[in-house]
Amino acid sequence: MRVSVFRKEHFNAAHRLWNSKWSDEKNVEVFGKCCNPNYHGHNYDLVVQVTGEIDPETGYVIDMKILSKIIREQILRRFDHKNLNADTEEFRQLNPTAENIVVVIYNILRPLLDDRLELKIKLYETERNYAEYPA
Amino acid sequence: MRVSVFRKEHFNAAHRLWNSKWSDEKNVEVFGKCCNPNYHGHNYDLVVQVTGEIDPETGYVIDMKILSKIIREQILRRFDHKNLNADTEEFRQLNPTAENIVVVIYNILRPLLDDRLELKIKLYETERNYAEYPA
Amino acid sequence: MRVSVFRKEHFNAAHRLWNSKWSDEKNVEVFGKCCNPNYHGHNYDLVVQVTGEIDPETGYVIDMKILSKIIREQILRRFDHKNLNADTEEFRQLNPTAENIVVVIYNILRPLLDDRLELKIKLYETERNYAEYPA
Amino acid sequence: MRVSVFRKEHFNAAHRLWNSKWSDEKNVEVFGKCCNPNYHGHNYDLVVQVTGEIDPETGYVIDMKILSKIIREQILRRFDHKNLNADTEEFRQLNPTAENIVVVIYNILRPLLDDRLELKIKLYETERNYAEYPA
Amino acid sequence: MRVSVFRKEHFNAAHRLWNSKWSDEKNVEVFGKCCNPNYHGHNYDLVVQVTGEIDPETGYVIDMKILSKIIREQILRRFDHKNLNADTEEFRQLNPTAENIVVVIYNILRPLLDDRLELKIKLYETERNYAEYPA
Amino acid sequence: MRVSVFRKEHFNAAHRLWNSKWSDEKNVEVFGKCCNPNYHGHNYDLVVQVTGEIDPETGYVIDMKILSKIIREQILRRFDHKNLNADTEEFRQLNPTAENIVVVIYNILRPLLDDRLELKIKLYETERNYAEYPA
Repeated sequence: MRVSVFRKEHFNAAHRLWNSKWSDEKNVEVFGKCCNPNYHGHNYDLVVQVTGEIDPETGYVIDMKILSKIIREQILRRFDHKNLNADTEEFRQLNPTAENIVVVIYNILRPLLDDRLELKIKLYETERNYAEYPA
Repeated sequence: MRVSVFRKEHFNAAHRLWNSKWSDEKNVEVFGKCCNPNYHGHNYDLVVQVTGEIDPETGYVIDMKILSKIIREQILRRFDHKNLNADTEEFRQLNPTAENIVVVIYNILRPLLDDRLELKIKLYETERNYAEYPA
Repeated sequence: MRVSVFRKEHFNAAHRLWNSKWSDEKNVEVFGKCCNPNYHGHNYDLVVQVTGEIDPETGYVIDMKILSKIIREQILRRFDHKNLNADTEEFRQLNPTAENIVVVIYNILRPLLDDRLELKIKLYETERNYAEYPA
Repeated sequence: MRVSVFRKEHFNAAHRLWNSKWSDEKNVEVFGKCCNPNYHGHNYDLVVQVTGEIDPETGYVIDMKILSKIIREQILRRFDHKNLNADTEEFRQLNPTAENIVVVIYNILRPLLDDRLELKIKLYETERNYAEYPA
Repeated sequence: MRVSVFRKEHFNAAHRLWNSKWSDEKNVEVFGKCCNPNYHGHNYDLVVQVTGEIDPETGYVIDMKILSKIIREQILRRFDHKNLNADTEEFRQLNPTAENIVVVIYNILRPLLDDRLELKIKLYETERNYAEYPA
Repeated sequence: MRVSVFRKEHFNAAHRLWNSKWSDEKNVEVFGKCCNPNYHGHNYDLVVQVTGEIDPETGYVIDMKILSKIIREQILRRFDHKNLNADTEEFRQLNPTAENIVVVIYNILRPLLDDRLELKIKLYETERNYAEYPA
């Protein structure tokens, strides 16, 4: 009787898409306006999905207050109102595409949750572009 | 060639989170403001997902008018504009968390649908907290 | 050069519609399922609109961090996860319709803002029913 | 390390539900107001989900600019501001239910994507009625 | 102490933009794909705003159940699942732009409301195109 | 018989809030995390409202295709995927708060519209913070 619960949080960040091993021309050709040297930015909507058995004492899969606190301390404090490329260790070398961001967030949160719980991360870069991991 | 169809319905209800086997202190410690003795409430958005083969005559997996009617008669009539703890049989003993509500709704609707159809229930307690069953 | 700024906040509450001077029959006739004795509830979305000149030093009409703090301390602390009829002074006698709630919130916030600022309150009881004051 | 990416596009179309092998009476009985002879219409929201490995060079599963271009050229040019029944080859014989539309869109897009990529189509006929294929 | 209340309803319709006094070429030049001869369609979201004094007995400006009933009987019954050009008296001669539709809806509803109430109509043709009357 | 029409467009940009006449300490004190030296960013939703008489020939207040083209050429080309502080003339000296951005956009668009048309600009910096000019 496994149930998924979902918690949606929000952060704002600047980023640019960039492969430092490529020439400027190649970067512009592949990433277009997304590689603007002075960055652009997004309101990121983050949905953290946790799946497990319902605890019969609480009726919870996981206490959403605790889950929300973990997300705020581990993810929002790290990325909110930051420049992903310039201000964070995670994306100094790694291109901050939505795909890479969901994997990074998964890897930060996974060790902090009980092993019996499954984790899935969905990130809306805009209303029209989003990514999910694991697929 | 299985397709899922989704029908979204809506109900408003009061509830409080409470474990009657615990002391008041323990309840406040675990459920915080969610165990306010006089209840609080939510606009619940309910999404019923039905999966099956497309009927070649109608082009439907299930007639949405019929599905909507079942949801309104079985779920909305039971829970809309009600106090889940005080007014319903289902949650007189069972803590009305989003997790428990999706399982209850699943168990009410499951026997009313053809065996060849799969059923999944998603319930938004708020835009930022929701649950899905089966996972 | 007057500009409006808007801050959206959120609270969850139980309520029932009820006129204590009327008979039960009259209440049921007028308020229907909204006068359920054990209450029902809503996710209220609150939009506070403040209009004034832009301060040339800050570029702000009002600092949204300060406005948000006032709303949280004065409105959310009072109404969030509460039963409007049973837990609040404001609605012990006054019927907690969306119309009355926007006027009450306006009257709480108005004295806390500079006289040069105009104030308008919008409250979404559901996505489909909402109220605004002053009109 | 498979990741899903999602691209949301939009088209407006007229349609009616109709089985040409049935009598008018049978059509009205099954499809109700949805078989109005002069059609009705919808704002369709289309979500195309593509699943695969992240390319380490780009950080992309698939370039969203390319995916968006394929959707616009193959789907929007075919269906946007059209009458699905009268103006399109795909639905001249096939009833344009949400279920049939998601299968048709899947079959158009599937051959245009690399075999290593999985594809899933979600179509919102309204906010409250939608379909997904494969399930 | 005037308050506005808002009721949101929904209808689906087919339409085309067309000026019968113009040549086909002129129509195509001005209305582009919106004059497709076989129509296209929309999910219209309709917001009816009513402004007046709060009735101290009920706490209502207007009973939303009554307002919703008027809208359903007068507007949805007329336009929902219809072809605006072909099925309705109102738009047989009049071009069914969002601008003309809000004026038509205003003129239908205005005589049905008490003179002390003000009325405003907002119509979303899509999420990105909408109209309001009176301005 | 004046009607308002609304067109919603979207752009993504980086920015920081900063008053160059103040010390770093004063900037941090007033703008908090919004003055992060390496910027953060937003998905800006822009709503352009135009009010005027309906043209009886077209049924339009203004052709939305033309309005959308003006917004894309004048606003999106200038601000989309840009750093407002570093990449634009408009905000090199002026603090890019939502308040200042709506005034700047108004001043760019106002001369491009017929004098008989009124103009109003609404800008969503996030779903919860937005501004409108003129008030």
